[in-house]
Amino acid sequence: MRERLATGIVQVMATHSPLSARLAEEAGFDAVWASGFELSALYGVPDASLLSFSQHLEMTRAIAERVSIPVVADLDTGHGNALNVRHVVRQYDRAGAGAVVLEDKTFPKATSLLPGARHELIGTAEFQGKLAAALDARSSDRLLVIGRTEALIAGLGLEEALARGRAYAEAGADLILVHSKRPEPDEIVAFAERWDRPTPLAIVPTAYPSLDLTRIAELRTIRMVIYGNHAIRASVAAMRDAFATIRADGGLARADRTVAPLEEILRLQGMDEHRAAERRYLTDQGEP
Amino acid sequence: MRERLATGIVQVMATHSPLSARLAEEAGFDAVWASGFELSALYGVPDASLLSFSQHLEMTRAIAERVSIPVVADLDTGHGNALNVRHVVRQYDRAGAGAVVLEDKTFPKATSLLPGARHELIGTAEFQGKLAAALDARSSDRLLVIGRTEALIAGLGLEEALARGRAYAEAGADLILVHSKRPEPDEIVAFAERWDRPTPLAIVPTAYPSLDLTRIAELRTIRMVIYGNHAIRASVAAMRDAFATIRADGGLARADRTVAPLEEILRLQGMDEHRAAERRYLTDQGEP
Amino acid sequence: MRERLATGIVQVMATHSPLSARLAEEAGFDAVWASGFELSALYGVPDASLLSFSQHLEMTRAIAERVSIPVVADLDTGHGNALNVRHVVRQYDRAGAGAVVLEDKTFPKATSLLPGARHELIGTAEFQGKLAAALDARSSDRLLVIGRTEALIAGLGLEEALARGRAYAEAGADLILVHSKRPEPDEIVAFAERWDRPTPLAIVPTAYPSLDLTRIAELRTIRMVIYGNHAIRASVAAMRDAFATIRADGGLARADRTVAPLEEILRLQGMDEHRAAERRYLTDQGEP
Amino acid sequence: MRERLATGIVQVMATHSPLSARLAEEAGFDAVWASGFELSALYGVPDASLLSFSQHLEMTRAIAERVSIPVVADLDTGHGNALNVRHVVRQYDRAGAGAVVLEDKTFPKATSLLPGARHELIGTAEFQGKLAAALDARSSDRLLVIGRTEALIAGLGLEEALARGRAYAEAGADLILVHSKRPEPDEIVAFAERWDRPTPLAIVPTAYPSLDLTRIAELRTIRMVIYGNHAIRASVAAMRDAFATIRADGGLARADRTVAPLEEILRLQGMDEHRAAERRYLTDQGEP
Repeated sequence: MRERLATGIVQVMATHSPLSARLAEEAGFDAVWASGFELSALYGVPDASLLSFSQHLEMTRAIAERVSIPVVADLDTGHGNALNVRHVVRQYDRAGAGAVVLEDKTFPKATSLLPGARHELIGTAEFQGKLAAALDARSSDRLLVIGRTEALIAGLGLEEALARGRAYAEAGADLILVHSKRPEPDEIVAFAERWDRPTPLAIVPTAYPSLDLTRIAELRTIRMVIYGNHAIRASVAAMRDAFATIRADGGLARADRTVAPLEEILRLQGMDEHRAAERRYLTDQGEP
Repeated sequence: MRERLATGIVQVMATHSPLSARLAEEAGFDAVWASGFELSALYGVPDASLLSFSQHLEMTRAIAERVSIPVVADLDTGHGNALNVRHVVRQYDRAGAGAVVLEDKTFPKATSLLPGARHELIGTAEFQGKLAAALDARSSDRLLVIGRTEALIAGLGLEEALARGRAYAEAGADLILVHSKRPEPDEIVAFAERWDRPTPLAIVPTAYPSLDLTRIAELRTIRMVIYGNHAIRASVAAMRDAFATIRADGGLARADRTVAPLEEILRLQGMDEHRAAERRYLTDQGEP
Repeated sequence: MRERLATGIVQVMATHSPLSARLAEEAGFDAVWASGFELSALYGVPDASLLSFSQHLEMTRAIAERVSIPVVADLDTGHGNALNVRHVVRQYDRAGAGAVVLEDKTFPKATSLLPGARHELIGTAEFQGKLAAALDARSSDRLLVIGRTEALIAGLGLEEALARGRAYAEAGADLILVHSKRPEPDEIVAFAERWDRPTPLAIVPTAYPSLDLTRIAELRTIRMVIYGNHAIRASVAAMRDAFATIRADGGLARADRTVAPLEEILRLQGMDEHRAAERRYLTDQGEP
Repeated sequence: MRERLATGIVQVMATHSPLSARLAEEAGFDAVWASGFELSALYGVPDASLLSFSQHLEMTRAIAERVSIPVVADLDTGHGNALNVRHVVRQYDRAGAGAVVLEDKTFPKATSLLPGARHELIGTAEFQGKLAAALDARSSDRLLVIGRTEALIAGLGLEEALARGRAYAEAGADLILVHSKRPEPDEIVAFAERWDRPTPLAIVPTAYPSLDLTRIAELRTIRMVIYGNHAIRASVAAMRDAFATIRADGGLARADRTVAPLEEILRLQGMDEHRAAERRYLTDQGEP
């Protein structure tokens, strides 16, 4: 992934399962995003630090086992302090992750707009400690450590966002992910234009879909684009429609025309290779 | 579910996650099918007894926690002999399953057409032992035990299928699931017409989608219809299309028009209720 | 457990596994303590919020499945804020826990004596919010919610400890666990003597082993005694000795005289009942 | 481990947890045995294929993360056929196992002496297929594949045991584990004396503790000795005694003298290193 970052823009598609990851790989994405939001959605719970890191780790491991492109793992705030970061980074490293993303929010995430509770960030030095712990915990620099700042979302302004980005780069982060939820890309563009460090930037343009690869390439400092939640959103729309059709019809005939054929599922499960292995290893079965 | 079985046809939609289960509940299905095939597909592996029962059990538990309709759990062959059945049925019972389905194949499932290896069934008496173990293992008869015969698929013919169905009913199964992979419903119709026991039948009409609820109702003996894999097939088609669009465009703008809006995902995650709980339980946060 | 609390002192033995729990049940303890410390020790990691709650939850579930006495589950700080408490309490309830213990420390636990980092407590009102969330989350009041204050350990003094205890009782906690690490029981005795609410007290006399049941009974306000870590400490001493003997001897003959006979392990595994079930359910195996 | 096998006898101690594994490492054993029997005992269930491979895999992974000596993983029969073997070996390889042991029994293990059900073995060619699948599935030959024959226990005699051992060696197994439950080592000694292949042998002398390292060294063909269940047996005896003492005394004072001191547990948890890391990564905490 390092090489690709040096020469182009790494496009990363959100996933919530090995199946969605394989589809992303087949579509030509450079990497997959083992998204906390998508996994929470898959489990039908709010993205509010409710799933345990074990649940996310196991899904990340399963994804890494089934695709050959790198998996970028969403570690949220690292599940505690720098010591927890150290513990979980070791496990994601062994699980085969290609990158981990740590963000500078407080734990647990608050989702509502309660006074005093919203979008608080931890101190810059404390987050540098988390990054240092992550960097020291990896078995090799094959694992990228990405520092994510929520400064823009927290309303702290561009200067603070830049200051944090620089501090995280100084702490050794391999990329800086700067996040924004504004419907226009203006503040991300401003950040990217003013970014003055060699460390490349990553963005998640979910909220500002008008920012496409052409413009991103012109900005030159952004080297990773994470498409944050389209796998689960595509799935939901399609399941909702198929379910409604089946209910309305009291049967499968019409729905069958829009869903993927069974053969496509079998292919994604690797059934051909499995059957070849059956022929190879089971031929003598039943003949003791 | 017993009441519903007595008065109508229980329609069960396949799921692979709490999210798909919630969509099935919203679409009005009576129950969800915690499908081994769909879960294997989610994990990108063949449906060949490769996932451990722990993985399926945990997903079943997560589903049961997030929907109010019953969960029908696919236990395959029961993960071993009658003693294993006993062990796993206890755990599915505690996990909140509303029904478990056990099938009369040998373990592990063979997927290819190897001579001597395909679709072998265990003996009728041995499978009755498994059903007895399952029935004794449940904490109450709230949990339905469904006996599934693969006799038609194994090419053993209608008489053997009926004999097995009767033997499983005699052993106490709450329903008999008779499975067929013929593209026409003729052998299922024949089975249903000749079925002469009070125990209701269940079917999975994936292979013969022309058999709809109207005809099923006329047959009178079938009381449960399981739509076996349309959740995952719908998801795959939609993700494949969305991914292709995003790749082609180098951006999200066009794909955004077909995928579900973010608000729909948040709703399915229960975000409104979560925010209400934040207001209730967190109001004094930060004021020691 | 409520009845027993009303009439006597509930003695709770620490466990880290179904095996140790069965031994505790056989020894006559009233309940078992699914200890975070013991489980962390079993996994060879510091008791510093490193294990995920999934790992602890699964062990609690396994324990509850294998003993008939109640399981008191150590939830530490609840794995986040009141919303996380709500999420995890629901899962421990379903896992069969008889009680959950929540403590008023900040998350994650710091283990060292760093300035500013040690033993910080969250605000009283915030902890009351956690207790309220836990009480509302349980499916019935069969599940006891125990509020644990670390005020004495944090050096906040007896008055603050009493004030917190009263506030937690007022919030609805079924018991108040007051913790102390002083080698003499003086501050616990003082707390128990001054306790003026009907809510019973719980203690963990690991640090002050001289406080025995006779004295505890005289204090009248303490109704639960948790022996906090003797299962794992006993195991460690015995394994260390057995391993040393086997290494010294280059063989098993001498070590065999001190370890439990194999038959005792088989008995604890429920082998007799398992064999009876084999005879019951497998007799017809192999006769298709 | 290969080097050690070439030059001496590898002594392997049974474990059921990272904690017991660390004690084994400290005692000087060359490797640890992630035992299915010990883990089943820890969970209080019979060793009859009841735990899922996920449960055993996770414990193996946790052990491998916490010791620097190799972990020999007990895969029982491989959780199905050769295709399941392939699937699980890949996961144990990634989990950091140093060796996997596969045995030639049928699945699931029967524990009783039912006619027709006891100790059946699968065919030699079928087991060779399992070994081939395991050998092909490993990422490198760092992972040893050990073929275990139960021919002696199944009462098939020395010639059949030798024939199977040779066939498994021919299939590429790195070691042949020959198992016996006779209280005297005579049949193991006979096997070892007649063994005529370069592939080294492994034994589990639990049933015949009189066979010590001196005699084993004289036999020359045995290069691995697995001490099969003394960790859990030592633990049980010690917990039983400590629990009885605490119950009898109504207090901890006397039991404290026999159990390991708390400091020893903290040391095994790596608390010193953890505290050093706190000082390193948390010093700036709380100063935003």
